Amino acid sequence: MKVNHYALQLENNYLFSEIASRLRAFQKEYPDRTLLKCSIGDVTRPLPRILVETMKNAAEEMAHPETFRGYGAEQGELFLREAIAQYYAKRGLSVHPEDIFVSDGAKSDLGNLCDLFDADNTVLLPNPVYPVYYDTSIMSGRHVVFLEGSQKNEFLPMPDFSVHADIIYLCSPNNPTGAVYNREQLAEWVAYALEQKAILLFDAAYESYIQDASLPHSIFEIEGAEQCALEINSLSKMAGFTGVRCGWTVVPRTLVLDGASLHQMWFRRMATKYNGTSYIIQRTAAKVFTEEGQQAVREDIAYYMENAHILKKALNQAGIWSTGGDNAPYVWLKAPNNLDSWEFFDELLNRYGIAGTPGAGFGTAGEGYLRFSSFASRETIQEAAKLLENLDFSGKSSK
Amino acid sequence: MKVNHYALQLENNYLFSEIASRLRAFQKEYPDRTLLKCSIGDVTRPLPRILVETMKNAAEEMAHPETFRGYGAEQGELFLREAIAQYYAKRGLSVHPEDIFVSDGAKSDLGNLCDLFDADNTVLLPNPVYPVYYDTSIMSGRHVVFLEGSQKNEFLPMPDFSVHADIIYLCSPNNPTGAVYNREQLAEWVAYALEQKAILLFDAAYESYIQDASLPHSIFEIEGAEQCALEINSLSKMAGFTGVRCGWTVVPRTLVLDGASLHQMWFRRMATKYNGTSYIIQRTAAKVFTEEGQQAVREDIAYYMENAHILKKALNQAGIWSTGGDNAPYVWLKAPNNLDSWEFFDELLNRYGIAGTPGAGFGTAGEGYLRFSSFASRETIQEAAKLLENLDFSGKSSK
Repeated sequence: MKVNHYALQLENNYLFSEIASRLRAFQKEYPDRTLLKCSIGDVTRPLPRILVETMKNAAEEMAHPETFRGYGAEQGELFLREAIAQYYAKRGLSVHPEDIFVSDGAKSDLGNLCDLFDADNTVLLPNPVYPVYYDTSIMSGRHVVFLEGSQKNEFLPMPDFSVHADIIYLCSPNNPTGAVYNREQLAEWVAYALEQKAILLFDAAYESYIQDASLPHSIFEIEGAEQCALEINSLSKMAGFTGVRCGWTVVPRTLVLDGASLHQMWFRRMATKYNGTSYIIQRTAAKVFTEEGQQAVREDIAYYMENAHILKKALNQAGIWSTGGDNAPYVWLKAPNNLDSWEFFDELLNRYGIAGTPGAGFGTAGEGYLRFSSFASRETIQEAAKLLENLDFSGKSSK
Repeated sequence: MKVNHYALQLENNYLFSEIASRLRAFQKEYPDRTLLKCSIGDVTRPLPRILVETMKNAAEEMAHPETFRGYGAEQGELFLREAIAQYYAKRGLSVHPEDIFVSDGAKSDLGNLCDLFDADNTVLLPNPVYPVYYDTSIMSGRHVVFLEGSQKNEFLPMPDFSVHADIIYLCSPNNPTGAVYNREQLAEWVAYALEQKAILLFDAAYESYIQDASLPHSIFEIEGAEQCALEINSLSKMAGFTGVRCGWTVVPRTLVLDGASLHQMWFRRMATKYNGTSYIIQRTAAKVFTEEGQQAVREDIAYYMENAHILKKALNQAGIWSTGGDNAPYVWLKAPNNLDSWEFFDELLNRYGIAGTPGAGFGTAGEGYLRFSSFASRETIQEAAKLLENLDFSGKSSK
């Protein structure tokens, strides 16, 4: 038997385990100091009561023969797909429930979508970006080219029509930079994808954090996207579902590439390798899209966004360059005095007790930057902000 | 962009939609006749109370900051992996929690395991068998060879050492035939896999239905399996989880093939393309393995097995050859008078109102057979049995 040798080419991603190990060392060395964790890309607010009650009611349904549910539709239950379609409709977007596929989360979909494409395809990735796009592309044996984000392009790299791409990943709002493409920029990306006959995989997992009404939440706000793009979304950050697990992908029936309907291919893939998302979870997810559900989850989003503002204000006061945090839960900051990402990480940790995520962990173009997450408690954020305001790195510089 | 052309080679599997369409036609033509559905491979008994209460308690945990859970381990929570290890230990098997990977179900694992192997591998499949093995192998671009089950080999085909295989799928107890390999037979399979340097994917999804104490529940009861086999299992049929979704796969760290640790590869695959199984579901799953949990789910298993016995007895009385149903929830029967699978299906449906699943849908060697499922209610099974006892196909024969 021959193993998938491409999967062996993947280097182990030690980013989060390396952070964890340095935090452990800090706590061992300074047992009395408070560790302010602004490094976690995971929600911390509990689930809203209305969702918990919905989940319990769905659990109770399973106890009675009349309401018990066995295998559901592999594509997801119609009640949830209709609720998601309504969510799009509220922004004037027409997304058909038949084009929506429910899953256990965006990471699964992003990985599993690789099944639809040949190994011999060139993947175009922004840099820095969520590492899953790169890792899954390498595991599939694909060639990867990068497009660099920088302060100059506001970490929103634009397509170069002279560079060929077959599969394009975009993440907007971006993890880790918090940068968000505007409508004109996305229109250029769609034009590029159409010209290249490429597929654009649009990761909208943070769209619910967008505050600026002019910014697009969905690639399907752009004309022509229905012929070149599919969209992945998730309830993880929108509704605190990181431990609950539910996401969805929109694959329009109009999406025909290389002579094949990607909708039919994805339908067949899901019917063959997936048995549907837990009924209990789907019921809870559907509640998120009701008026009461949206009100509850928007309170948590507002809480996290206030955290982001507190962090941004403090960084501003300290004269540290930062972006993101206005329409995304992530704040992306430049290490002062040309420190590299890990040097800055160590300095912040050892001198101030603040943990961030080194930008270099998200790609070469992230070197010299750090990501703060706003998913911590208000108390943690306020304490961190107080320290950040008076950040003093004079005399510190890169080796 | 080039699509995965292998996935396009897959024919649509119309088995279950074709059955559904013929059942609809029956109900339209005979609105007053009772339809006795013995065709469903899905549980029908509600979840035991103890599991529903566990699920509600886990939901309540999510409502409080102290007990809220975000992202869990991609491999599964330790409390559940330990509970599963204990389940093996009760049969004297030493399976380490580190070798257990929790998922949302066996179908996902069976599909996703394809990621670990090169396209250039020969897959060996028993025939008839659960169609997912074939479909996922074709989608991965692999060559498939079959090993025929028949009445002569009791639908338990044995390896031919002169035939090369890289990837071997076994399902025991078998879906659809209900046949179960004994210890000596599995030992021969393990010897064959070791000799071929092949990987043996052992699907044990129905092991909890085994009644005969001498029959193996796990491939790891066989010496040497830890060097050539991994095992997929599920709570779907064991605990009524078809709509709840939870399964697991054991990938021993001793499993090194083609110079690679399959354990490490699967760990990396799950960490990259999966974000863990829902916490609420994992808590409920762990309860299944407690003493009370096992007692509750064993009552449902006994109920279904009694259904199987009622069906078998009736078939016996009618002089219809059948197998399975003793250690599996499926009864596999031979169509009388050399009818083919679909002819027999139509006759049973139209003359008796009984629905089965045509054996031809599970592979060419299933032609001329039918599968009955014991997952219906006792009332349905008893009514069907009464009709089956007096089954009269004299004068009916294949065209």
